[in-house]
Amino acid sequence: MAHINENYLKLPGSYLFSEIARRTAAYVNSHPDAELIKLGIGDVTRPLAPAVTQAMHTAVDDLSRAESFYGYGPEQGYDFLRDPIAQFDFAARGVDICVDEIFVSDGAKSDCGNIGDILSVDNIVAVCDPVYPVYVDTNAMAGRAGDYSEDTQRWSDIVYMPTTAENGFCPELPEKDVDIIYLCSPNNPTGTVLNAHQLKKWVDYANEHEAIIMFDAAYERFVIEPDIPHSIYEIEGAKTCAIEFRSFSKTAGFTGARCGYTVVPKELIRGGTSLNTLWNRRQTTKFNGASYVIQRGAAAIYTPEGERQIEETLAYYRYNAHIIKEGLERAGFDVFGAVNSPYVWCKTPGQMGSWDFFNVLLEQANVITTPGAGFGPAGEGYIRLTAFGDTQDTEKAVMRIEALKL
Amino acid sequence: MAHINENYLKLPGSYLFSEIARRTAAYVNSHPDAELIKLGIGDVTRPLAPAVTQAMHTAVDDLSRAESFYGYGPEQGYDFLRDPIAQFDFAARGVDICVDEIFVSDGAKSDCGNIGDILSVDNIVAVCDPVYPVYVDTNAMAGRAGDYSEDTQRWSDIVYMPTTAENGFCPELPEKDVDIIYLCSPNNPTGTVLNAHQLKKWVDYANEHEAIIMFDAAYERFVIEPDIPHSIYEIEGAKTCAIEFRSFSKTAGFTGARCGYTVVPKELIRGGTSLNTLWNRRQTTKFNGASYVIQRGAAAIYTPEGERQIEETLAYYRYNAHIIKEGLERAGFDVFGAVNSPYVWCKTPGQMGSWDFFNVLLEQANVITTPGAGFGPAGEGYIRLTAFGDTQDTEKAVMRIEALKL
Repeated sequence: MAHINENYLKLPGSYLFSEIARRTAAYVNSHPDAELIKLGIGDVTRPLAPAVTQAMHTAVDDLSRAESFYGYGPEQGYDFLRDPIAQFDFAARGVDICVDEIFVSDGAKSDCGNIGDILSVDNIVAVCDPVYPVYVDTNAMAGRAGDYSEDTQRWSDIVYMPTTAENGFCPELPEKDVDIIYLCSPNNPTGTVLNAHQLKKWVDYANEHEAIIMFDAAYERFVIEPDIPHSIYEIEGAKTCAIEFRSFSKTAGFTGARCGYTVVPKELIRGGTSLNTLWNRRQTTKFNGASYVIQRGAAAIYTPEGERQIEETLAYYRYNAHIIKEGLERAGFDVFGAVNSPYVWCKTPGQMGSWDFFNVLLEQANVITTPGAGFGPAGEGYIRLTAFGDTQDTEKAVMRIEALKL
Repeated sequence: MAHINENYLKLPGSYLFSEIARRTAAYVNSHPDAELIKLGIGDVTRPLAPAVTQAMHTAVDDLSRAESFYGYGPEQGYDFLRDPIAQFDFAARGVDICVDEIFVSDGAKSDCGNIGDILSVDNIVAVCDPVYPVYVDTNAMAGRAGDYSEDTQRWSDIVYMPTTAENGFCPELPEKDVDIIYLCSPNNPTGTVLNAHQLKKWVDYANEHEAIIMFDAAYERFVIEPDIPHSIYEIEGAKTCAIEFRSFSKTAGFTGARCGYTVVPKELIRGGTSLNTLWNRRQTTKFNGASYVIQRGAAAIYTPEGERQIEETLAYYRYNAHIIKEGLERAGFDVFGAVNSPYVWCKTPGQMGSWDFFNVLLEQANVITTPGAGFGPAGEGYIRLTAFGDTQDTEKAVMRIEALKL
């Protein structure tokens, strides 16, 4: 008799976005004329850069002719994409990453989820709280999380590191030894960043404890402050302890096109084995490469024209983040993130719960946000707003919130 | 200290195609003027259908404009693709598969590899011998295979079911109870098919034993004989015991474009849990949907124009398979497969080993094939030839082999 993976049965429902949808629908039902503005959405809205779509058209044409047809590609990605990644994302920042340390994929969510394949189920996992749920859920599926408690909203075997205004959104080193540490900077959901000094503390910890840092840099292109690392490999010692996830989703609007990459340094050795070799084996066995058409599109963002075009779109989103931050601050809120990130993390007024504040903004300003509690217990008392909307709508939403005089 | 997944260390090297490349390179080095013809390749060579590339161009244009931009799509795939799959791949053959039983992905290799996520590591796995290596390697990575023996070329915990000319390439029901059974029809590498009667025997076994059949139908579009099932769901009882993998790779030349899908029926329950629910949770947590552009291209093969165009290409490959089969039979070989498949499985002459026969064909006919032994011990004594090449080259290769008078 076939047995299922019982770990799946321990997973709580994915409650956050369905509950937001439910509350929003209920409000619309009773207020059909309300003009709602969504500032909760984590998806991009601006079109792909012309250089990208042009490259995709050319790639589709390649596949339309026998003489330029591409079949199975290298599972690790084409060098026409890995070469500029190595050059522009790393060498240009003084970081030496080889092409064969770069694994192109269909996106960072897949890689963040699949990376656990190459690691033992016995490792102790540490995550920040609040957290992007994929880190936790994929470890729970693999059997690394123990049991879930509805009361604490926590898993018994996961080490949670609160990141709040009180600790400047930098997780403290854990008292208990941990083996796998997820860090995300610029952070989803808080929009805050870790500086070189803060990252160095973690790199040193990981090297001393032979732990592994899973560094999610999906929002790296939003960093504008000069002293904030874009890659964990800017920190000395990171190549012997860190794996880095990158995405073209927010960088260049690829949420629907699908492309990302993961860096696994050859110097990252655990138990005498290079994790680069293990990940290469995983990808060649369980993956067949990202789409040729999409890889060609991704490569176009490294051309001068493509670079200029994606920067225009990033500037658009940054401006939205600026509008939200300034407006909320004028209205007297404590606001975090937003500077190096498309995410704005706002303290609720008084001691208001984040779902209550969500309701207030929905019902009194007709603005949809994301309650911080949905990302973990330490997200209680905050809401997340995002900069991916239309600028005019964003301005209008912020004016409505200011007018509430909360 | 972080620990790796030790199961990876047990994997033997992926020897087959690197050894073919090594022997070929050595021959070319000493015979630089030899005009080699590759009949070993498992990749398509014909371009995408015009209807497909046109749909991809339109989809790229959609992403180039804010008003038609698509961001994150449903992880399960767009209904514009799932609807025609349900209609043309299933309903048209009298099989009732719901849209929410269809999960679109970046390809069948990913799904074949990832499906194990939702199953316990304690299940006993049965595979045919010879076999597509992904079934075995992914289970070995997960810890279901036990230990590998270089001597027997087998894993201690895997149940191998020889499929040879002696049993008509239909695996016998195993004496030991098994939980997960991989079946591939039309088969890679043998090119042979299982008929309804043969499949029914396995469906009954799986239902009786509460096992699960992983049915790989990646080559389904090559079936031309009217009594051969295209889907395992044509067999009564299959919905309560089988998962089916489909691919656009060989159907429509998507090896580089990347798209496939997996069917997990809601009626497939094990341990009281619907596997459809588990796979949906796996895909929504660890996958972010196949590329919008590529899904639009795949949907175009279900239009009358697209259907006609992909059938032209399939006819081209079928003709190549026919040439190989007829030529080898004229030359006195025992030949299998080829009729409902792009793969031709040829018995070596006398008691010649498959690597020896590979060498003969390389050195005396300058034709590159794939030794059957590379797919498992029961593949010894056979070679695989494929129909994905150019027709003129294929004709020339077959004439050379005939001229050898082996």
